[in-house]
Amino acid sequence: MICPVLDLAQQLIRRPSLSPDDAGCQEILIARLKAIGFHIEPMNFGDTLNFWATRGEGKTLAFAGHTDVVPTGDPTLWITPPFEPALRDGMLFGRGAADMKGSLASMVVAAERFVAANPNHQGRLAFLITSDEEASAVNGTVKVVEALMARNERMDYCLVGEPSSTTRVGDIVKNGRRGSMTANLQIHGVQGHVAYPHLADNPVHRAMPALNELVSIEWDQGNEFFPPTSMQIANINAGTGSNNVIPGELYVQFNFRFSTELTDATIKERVKALLDKHQLNYTLNWVVSGQPFLTPRGSLVDAVINAVQHYSEITPDLQTTGGTSDGRFIALMGAQVVELGPVNASIHKINECVQASDLQLLARMYQRIMEQLVG
Amino acid sequence: MICPVLDLAQQLIRRPSLSPDDAGCQEILIARLKAIGFHIEPMNFGDTLNFWATRGEGKTLAFAGHTDVVPTGDPTLWITPPFEPALRDGMLFGRGAADMKGSLASMVVAAERFVAANPNHQGRLAFLITSDEEASAVNGTVKVVEALMARNERMDYCLVGEPSSTTRVGDIVKNGRRGSMTANLQIHGVQGHVAYPHLADNPVHRAMPALNELVSIEWDQGNEFFPPTSMQIANINAGTGSNNVIPGELYVQFNFRFSTELTDATIKERVKALLDKHQLNYTLNWVVSGQPFLTPRGSLVDAVINAVQHYSEITPDLQTTGGTSDGRFIALMGAQVVELGPVNASIHKINECVQASDLQLLARMYQRIMEQLVG
Ligand SMILES: [Zn+2]
Ligand SMILES: [Zn+2]
Repeated sequence: MICPVLDLAQQLIRRPSLSPDDAGCQEILIARLKAIGFHIEPMNFGDTLNFWATRGEGKTLAFAGHTDVVPTGDPTLWITPPFEPALRDGMLFGRGAADMKGSLASMVVAAERFVAANPNHQGRLAFLITSDEEASAVNGTVKVVEALMARNERMDYCLVGEPSSTTRVGDIVKNGRRGSMTANLQIHGVQGHVAYPHLADNPVHRAMPALNELVSIEWDQGNEFFPPTSMQIANINAGTGSNNVIPGELYVQFNFRFSTELTDATIKERVKALLDKHQLNYTLNWVVSGQPFLTPRGSLVDAVINAVQHYSEITPDLQTTGGTSDGRFIALMGAQVVELGPVNASIHKINECVQASDLQLLARMYQRIMEQLVG
Repeated sequence: MICPVLDLAQQLIRRPSLSPDDAGCQEILIARLKAIGFHIEPMNFGDTLNFWATRGEGKTLAFAGHTDVVPTGDPTLWITPPFEPALRDGMLFGRGAADMKGSLASMVVAAERFVAANPNHQGRLAFLITSDEEASAVNGTVKVVEALMARNERMDYCLVGEPSSTTRVGDIVKNGRRGSMTANLQIHGVQGHVAYPHLADNPVHRAMPALNELVSIEWDQGNEFFPPTSMQIANINAGTGSNNVIPGELYVQFNFRFSTELTDATIKERVKALLDKHQLNYTLNWVVSGQPFLTPRGSLVDAVINAVQHYSEITPDLQTTGGTSDGRFIALMGAQVVELGPVNASIHKINECVQASDLQLLARMYQRIMEQLVG
């Protein structure tokens, strides 16, 4: 008899749902949730399919996830075509196996088992599913959250199924994420010929003391939950390509991953003060991709730790490192947010895969979290 | 009656001699010089036509110049088609009018007049003409100089016809040029994701203290004849274009214009010491385009000053500023080298032009220099 988690995971992988195309995945999930009494509310925005599903009343535990996947890369490099899932030596291969169709399958099967055992559960169980987390994400979770907040609907706990684990399922749980913001800085000078430097104003030379100071700043020391804030210059460009032209403009793009010790406003202020101190003629634009969030110990974190310990005999590390996730939007609702999912070693790569037994384990863990919080 | 200088200048401008295409210019010059008893030696290398012409024996005064011109830019922006010379309000328009077909015409007419008056002149009068000074110049003057040196032929004085003047002909004479050399520097790091800076090594951050020091160095203070050595970063590039990738490599290209207070070897040593002090992992390649040279007061400079004063009643400024010229190659022969030519305000631009009377004046000045040195 085939395991229902693996069966559902394979059904989902077979749909080539490249962001923001859902390719029929949500239809499958909706049918399964409807069958066990969930109320389904499609919340589509632009090119993105989203749905919000609820069952019961009261304190709300929501499971959040995405049906879209990143591109496959060269499909001929895969040991199985990326949208034809294959089980080999206990591993399930296919694009989305780990990020995050495996988690979606585990969540839905966990809900089915939980509802079968607790048809009249106390709290409210919910699903927030989007088809665009991997690409621009502008019409995905953020819009659903805005709509829910606009009608004063709230969730208390949110379990995001992103692949948080590194070697064994549950070894790492994310209870927060750093903020992310990017500066686009243009330093203005005056172009000229290298033989006549007095007629030009080299923006590279002019910017150098400020940039040297920028890269040497210790922004904070982090805290119990966050590593120190990190700034990285991702792009720097000036010059016409000719070796005898002094450039007229210098472009520098730098990104911050910042802890809860700082706010985006503080960072903006400090950068501006630095540039002004060096009397640069500049244009500076900021893009804030996400604020940092943190879910300290409490009902949700405790329930997750308990579930992991119960099924794996390891105690998860609580971390806030790594990239951003849709958790940043959900945290804005004031919900406790934790990410628990499969091992992330192969995500976004050729031959993405996940251990089949990890998905089965994950379904049990998710069910145990439901039992503790809305059981 | 049309002036022979302007007539010859117009004949030359009519030939669209875009580097290294001579387009028939040298044929004209050769015919004129042959007619007054010059011995002509074509010295063509690769795609470049050059010739060496001599008349007489003994101390040698050579006139040096190029028949090639830079591209015209959009020809519809010219008040006359760029290769159809036009006289308007006393100005001669056309590509090459100032740089340097006007000078070539003045030189040749000056030689004709000088030979007519001094058929048995004492020293040797010579011409070194190339069709590639404006482009790569690799098969031009430098190759002719090498060939002459290889057979122990020398010149004592060289008058280069480059447009040295700024507002009146003869207001500035170049008696030297700064050296020019370019560094191509690659700083090696390790590419990574901005969310995981500990797994990467950002070459931009690593290079910043060294680059900041580089731009603040005072290389020398120049001397009586040279402005201080100038270093300019012409190009700097790092990054994939993405705001979440730490670049793996930083490329920096910088150019030195250096005085006779320094040598290329000294500069290379100082840059290497700086990079090593900052413990950078780098690759550095140098291209030395020209050594600095200087022709102090002496027979040639004195003759040039005398000629300018005689015809214009101004005393020329001796300068070593500006770009490089073929003078750098000729100076390697141990010759005294001076540049005297028309006003350079319009060179390399749309509507290049020169005052017609300046070319006539220049022919007189050139003739007076001949009289003083080989008369
Ligand atoms: Zn994901
Ligand atoms: Zn020229």
